[in-house]
Amino acid sequence: MLGVDPGLTRCGVGVVDGAPGKPLTLVHVGVIRTSPDDDIGIRLAALERGLEEILDAFRPEAVAVERVFAQHNVRTVMGTAQAGAVAILCGARRGLPVALHTPSEAKAAVTGNGRADKAQVTMMVTRLLRLETVPKPADAADALALAICHVWRGGAQARLAAARAAVPAPRILRKGVGQ
Amino acid sequence: MLGVDPGLTRCGVGVVDGAPGKPLTLVHVGVIRTSPDDDIGIRLAALERGLEEILDAFRPEAVAVERVFAQHNVRTVMGTAQAGAVAILCGARRGLPVALHTPSEAKAAVTGNGRADKAQVTMMVTRLLRLETVPKPADAADALALAICHVWRGGAQARLAAARAAVPAPRILRKGVGQ
Repeated sequence: MLGVDPGLTRCGVGVVDGAPGKPLTLVHVGVIRTSPDDDIGIRLAALERGLEEILDAFRPEAVAVERVFAQHNVRTVMGTAQAGAVAILCGARRGLPVALHTPSEAKAAVTGNGRADKAQVTMMVTRLLRLETVPKPADAADALALAICHVWRGGAQARLAAARAAVPAPRILRKGVGQ
Repeated sequence: MLGVDPGLTRCGVGVVDGAPGKPLTLVHVGVIRTSPDDDIGIRLAALERGLEEILDAFRPEAVAVERVFAQHNVRTVMGTAQAGAVAILCGARRGLPVALHTPSEAKAAVTGNGRADKAQVTMMVTRLLRLETVPKPADAADALALAICHVWRGGAQARLAAARAAVPAPRILRKGVGQ
């Protein structure tokens, strides 16, 4: 299971192995960074390459991406939405089920409290993955929480998504080609 | 020049040939549709395929994408931001300069008025491209206006973007691979 905490400057990625009722194992945790000095196109292409590397290396069976809501800072939320779109695209293009979970769903899954703070989330992720120290980089803990959330919650959702993905390809209607 | 008016349900695409001070020619106009009934991942992957077809068929030298702002309807703006991210990614991945223009920049470029209505934009696009009838589908006129805007405004911007794209690949820092 790959969890992605989308962001342009820092995109957290966490890969976890497990199933509901079974122990969880940390496979990978990391952050894909792109420079704020680069054009948005360069940044999205770099993020895509980074995510493709992770998908190639760890072959997750499903992808969980944090659902983006409008926040106070419009500029930040746009970058987050754009980074999230690339993560969703990378998963869907491989035929993987892609689930979206809100931050509070992920927090509730690992701590029992949808309004838990970062320290609580990090502590519970560390405990659930039976790590001796907190995962590093620490700000990738949210990506791991998402992956764990989806391992536990995602059974039914994943089956649904797989059934949907098996439906014939979506319509692409275009008019006036070569007009 | 490819102009993209991003949207999940309807994504307008317009390809225009021209240079500042020279007549403009319509190469292609169309809409890529995806179904609201499909998962977001399926929709973004379908949009990517549609855009790739356009890029393969018409080989534009640059891409202009409408810049997305937060609007009243958060749900709509998220879909627009996600669709825009795919368009930006498709262009940048090919090494094409990708420019973002606001709707009012595009309107001002073709009508002289940044607050022109849809009918004015469509009329001016029709006139500037020397078409006998309005381009169809009519709601792809915004994509053509974007492309025209960028042909006229974009000279300096495109050179800048090309210079930036020639800079060494952006840093992808990841920690803890295989941890």
